[in-house]
Amino acid sequence: MGTSEIPFGMNLPDPPAPASAPPRPDPRWRYSRPAMTSPAPATGTLLVSCPDRRGIVAAVAQLLYGHGANILDADQHTDPVAGQFFQRIRFDLSELHVDRTGLEQAVSAVAARFQMQWRLVLASERKRVAIFVSRYDHCLYDLLLRHRAGELACEIALIVSNHSNAKPVADQFGVAFQVFPITAASKRAQEERELELLTACRIDLIVLARYMQVLSAGFIGRWPARIINIHHSFLPAFVGSKPYHQAHERGVKLIGATAHYATTDLDEGPIIEQDVARASHRDSPSDLVRKGRDLERTVLARAVRWHVDDRVLVYGNKTVVFD
Amino acid sequence: MGTSEIPFGMNLPDPPAPASAPPRPDPRWRYSRPAMTSPAPATGTLLVSCPDRRGIVAAVAQLLYGHGANILDADQHTDPVAGQFFQRIRFDLSELHVDRTGLEQAVSAVAARFQMQWRLVLASERKRVAIFVSRYDHCLYDLLLRHRAGELACEIALIVSNHSNAKPVADQFGVAFQVFPITAASKRAQEERELELLTACRIDLIVLARYMQVLSAGFIGRWPARIINIHHSFLPAFVGSKPYHQAHERGVKLIGATAHYATTDLDEGPIIEQDVARASHRDSPSDLVRKGRDLERTVLARAVRWHVDDRVLVYGNKTVVFD
Amino acid sequence: MGTSEIPFGMNLPDPPAPASAPPRPDPRWRYSRPAMTSPAPATGTLLVSCPDRRGIVAAVAQLLYGHGANILDADQHTDPVAGQFFQRIRFDLSELHVDRTGLEQAVSAVAARFQMQWRLVLASERKRVAIFVSRYDHCLYDLLLRHRAGELACEIALIVSNHSNAKPVADQFGVAFQVFPITAASKRAQEERELELLTACRIDLIVLARYMQVLSAGFIGRWPARIINIHHSFLPAFVGSKPYHQAHERGVKLIGATAHYATTDLDEGPIIEQDVARASHRDSPSDLVRKGRDLERTVLARAVRWHVDDRVLVYGNKTVVFD
Amino acid sequence: MGTSEIPFGMNLPDPPAPASAPPRPDPRWRYSRPAMTSPAPATGTLLVSCPDRRGIVAAVAQLLYGHGANILDADQHTDPVAGQFFQRIRFDLSELHVDRTGLEQAVSAVAARFQMQWRLVLASERKRVAIFVSRYDHCLYDLLLRHRAGELACEIALIVSNHSNAKPVADQFGVAFQVFPITAASKRAQEERELELLTACRIDLIVLARYMQVLSAGFIGRWPARIINIHHSFLPAFVGSKPYHQAHERGVKLIGATAHYATTDLDEGPIIEQDVARASHRDSPSDLVRKGRDLERTVLARAVRWHVDDRVLVYGNKTVVFD
Repeated sequence: MGTSEIPFGMNLPDPPAPASAPPRPDPRWRYSRPAMTSPAPATGTLLVSCPDRRGIVAAVAQLLYGHGANILDADQHTDPVAGQFFQRIRFDLSELHVDRTGLEQAVSAVAARFQMQWRLVLASERKRVAIFVSRYDHCLYDLLLRHRAGELACEIALIVSNHSNAKPVADQFGVAFQVFPITAASKRAQEERELELLTACRIDLIVLARYMQVLSAGFIGRWPARIINIHHSFLPAFVGSKPYHQAHERGVKLIGATAHYATTDLDEGPIIEQDVARASHRDSPSDLVRKGRDLERTVLARAVRWHVDDRVLVYGNKTVVFD
Repeated sequence: MGTSEIPFGMNLPDPPAPASAPPRPDPRWRYSRPAMTSPAPATGTLLVSCPDRRGIVAAVAQLLYGHGANILDADQHTDPVAGQFFQRIRFDLSELHVDRTGLEQAVSAVAARFQMQWRLVLASERKRVAIFVSRYDHCLYDLLLRHRAGELACEIALIVSNHSNAKPVADQFGVAFQVFPITAASKRAQEERELELLTACRIDLIVLARYMQVLSAGFIGRWPARIINIHHSFLPAFVGSKPYHQAHERGVKLIGATAHYATTDLDEGPIIEQDVARASHRDSPSDLVRKGRDLERTVLARAVRWHVDDRVLVYGNKTVVFD
Repeated sequence: MGTSEIPFGMNLPDPPAPASAPPRPDPRWRYSRPAMTSPAPATGTLLVSCPDRRGIVAAVAQLLYGHGANILDADQHTDPVAGQFFQRIRFDLSELHVDRTGLEQAVSAVAARFQMQWRLVLASERKRVAIFVSRYDHCLYDLLLRHRAGELACEIALIVSNHSNAKPVADQFGVAFQVFPITAASKRAQEERELELLTACRIDLIVLARYMQVLSAGFIGRWPARIINIHHSFLPAFVGSKPYHQAHERGVKLIGATAHYATTDLDEGPIIEQDVARASHRDSPSDLVRKGRDLERTVLARAVRWHVDDRVLVYGNKTVVFD
Repeated sequence: MGTSEIPFGMNLPDPPAPASAPPRPDPRWRYSRPAMTSPAPATGTLLVSCPDRRGIVAAVAQLLYGHGANILDADQHTDPVAGQFFQRIRFDLSELHVDRTGLEQAVSAVAARFQMQWRLVLASERKRVAIFVSRYDHCLYDLLLRHRAGELACEIALIVSNHSNAKPVADQFGVAFQVFPITAASKRAQEERELELLTACRIDLIVLARYMQVLSAGFIGRWPARIINIHHSFLPAFVGSKPYHQAHERGVKLIGATAHYATTDLDEGPIIEQDVARASHRDSPSDLVRKGRDLERTVLARAVRWHVDDRVLVYGNKTVVFD
């Protein structure tokens, strides 16, 4: 995490707890056993965003080269209307001349010169993910299977639900599972307990994998650009509930799914990924639900993969996805 | 055209002029020279819609068989919620025992038994199409080229515009072209003149190929389910003007186009076809416009082809497309 | 199963054991516990194929109507080159005037008149499916999850593997699992044992869900059009092994997957379904493998769903899929 | 054009005539009138390829920055297997401190250090394109319309055909048109005349827009990575003639089109772009031809657009497309 004073859009919030002082395991909670994954490569990723001006690319490239960081991938984008520059650079750490602090200080100096917001992440520090789920478990299963297949470079540290029915799935994959039943009366208190658990588990990303509860503005505000939701329609069409039924009613010829960061405006957050499938008059609402399940799984999985690979930058209500 | 008293949804309006009395060419208008197309096959198509009950399929099949009409294709659909049955049957006329009137009388008798709305069309009676266009001519060109390539089994009888700039295109393809400049003051009068011309040319279908004028409710009401519009977004997202700019603003990852029948509710008519293309942060509004042109052309062309092949049935605000 | 003397292409083989005499459970094998599925609807499906001539549609419709079978869906196709007619009719059994034998006799009489090959199946008689799998379990998981979600109207009766690693998955879903280790020396004998088990379990369909053993011609010949294989390329491109590496080597911009019926010509059987995903120079072979897994799952699942719904007819080396 | 001694893969051949000595118009040939296009932006593009090693990105960025070239876009790729690095940088020329020769000398010095093959192109120097066409004119029309709409940043300088039927199209768009009838006997001599004309017209790129003659190895060898062909199948499936009929015969469920650079191995050249459309048993060969026309147009247009924007690098038998 960079030391820049300027918050990196919505994308660079302070961590929920200082990385230097990881909380001790809280005996009240069950923890996941570590996932069996191949060792992360010795690479780092630098994300920057700043007002567009000449010399940025050269300065950053020179900075990394000068410290022994060999650039593996670089992608950049300039929004000519907003006058904003975005870059993602992935580099090899194996011959770095300095330690991490040294590199961060060097980045910080360049950043100050260009009014740069930045974030430095190491592949060895995998993000810790909590999956929120209700009764539909197809997205949950999909994420767990992809994680097991090595598609998602993160730790799935926790599954949270308002129902107990996903517990066997969690057990089978060896992931900690916690039920927080929600009623109108208990909602606020339960969210507080959830936040406590998320902090205790040092969660970096929350994935709402068809979680059917609306999170409060207070909850969402504490996780800017770090809660990914899957909405089962092609946003901005069919905002709100029962979108497949809305789509059937309207007689559309394609149905869609949208993965987006959750914001306090329901279904209005920055879109990360969308996809569609063909529909026809032959499709009943339940056929659309079936086709939609496939869309939801693949669209959500892509969004999560891009997020954990630090490929998504948020600015305004939009995203830059360096895929 | 059937003799049933019950109008066939929006899809079976009375013709603008009796087929038995084609209007004489009006010397005020220029007429297209006949298109060079391969001779239409000796086939007929019967479209029926009625409350679902047992015995319909057998009765219709028996009716056609009994009169020497060999069924080539049949497709049907039952909407279980609406309790409505739809069928499209294409048959060979070459060994028909009766003349057209005899066949219509026979259909009429069965139709009465099942409260059936129906339409009987012959491939030899090609629909006459008018294309309305403004300044963008990519859809116009596309329809003319597809027609010339034999993809559209209709006559393109007329091109109407509120500008003169498409005239060279019309000339090149030998299609009659008429300009009706529109101002707020002249709109009503010009629409009357357009209707007069459409009647004189015995037009069956109006295609709004990026025609940028809003037609009055009175005009549209005279052409129920016989005006196809191309809207340059994935409806119901981005209703209204400048949808590509709306899409860019919202940061969607797919853009779309929608072909629909025009109704008095703008952009709310029954959807015939939709498609999408992938977009990203790299796409400027003008990139979206470029990608959108391809979508508009293919989506509109499919909708027109299905309509002229009598593959589209309208019910409520939806379509059944027997593709 | 019909009583017609004429075999229905490759698609209507005799059952492995007479339905009237189901084998007793063989104590040597473990059996699956019955899957928890919603009760099948009281519907039947009639599939017919015959030389095209007039009157077929009317005769079949009249036949069903006359016996109280209300047609719910009907789809048909005529191959004008082969002069062959194909039809699939799904009908309601709830007011049938006769029993199944009576209906079969009636169909048989009409079939004789039209040289018709036919098959009559009841939704209540779900097909029994065996899934063959090796080390990759993504397709296996996918089929089991879809089955549990109600997408596949069949019984998954058995999982067969040449390795033991899928056993926990089988256990978790309560499906019988049997390992048959294969070596060059043991292959023939093991296939005999597999056939014995398949017969004992009254299997109707074998799904090769990334089963990495080549089945012998003798084995395949006993299951005509009843073994579905997923090949991980867009056939006929990249026949044979390691197709994703072949695709990477050739630099294609799309990769694909193909579900087809297994025949003795490897990767040459009738194609049921195909799909593709976009690839680029950025994709390593392992990226293609990852993208391919998604393709394999969805393509195989569609093929299996269509087969168990009796939507696939084979003729020559091609399929008619009434989707 | 760079001064590097090492040829830049197939992509950096010597120009057909020195840029410093453009040939005088040859009175035997008709020339196109200049296309009406918006003025090209004052930008340049640098393409580089070299063995991968550290410091390349920094060196190139520093080089451009040091000469006043502001980087607008940069994209890069490393093939880890081949150990090869590729980069495309687009930069603003408006504040360049040196002239073009000065910039080229500076690039040349850095290139020598990294064994770099490179190419420097200016947006103001639009590529001159010749379109070869036979009887099918859908791709020709499509390219001309897209060019007129501003989608293709090139000059369409010439249309060549072995038939005269495209002449009215050429006339309508004001492009020079030349017929070279080809027989087995005349082929060699006619190709010589074609080459003479291409040189006289200073053509940079040949587009085979459904040109049905096989070019000789000698002809192709003179235009390495500068002839784009559209093949009407998803290569490597259905190499050779009548691919839509091959696809119909095989019963595939998707058909495709492939744009590739022509090499002396027919249909084996580096693939630039591919796309597919869905097919079914209902599609006759002529339906596949119709669907294929749409694919051919869009796939070829994308490949041409990427080429004229210098987004395509060839290495081995593959392409890197920085889209």
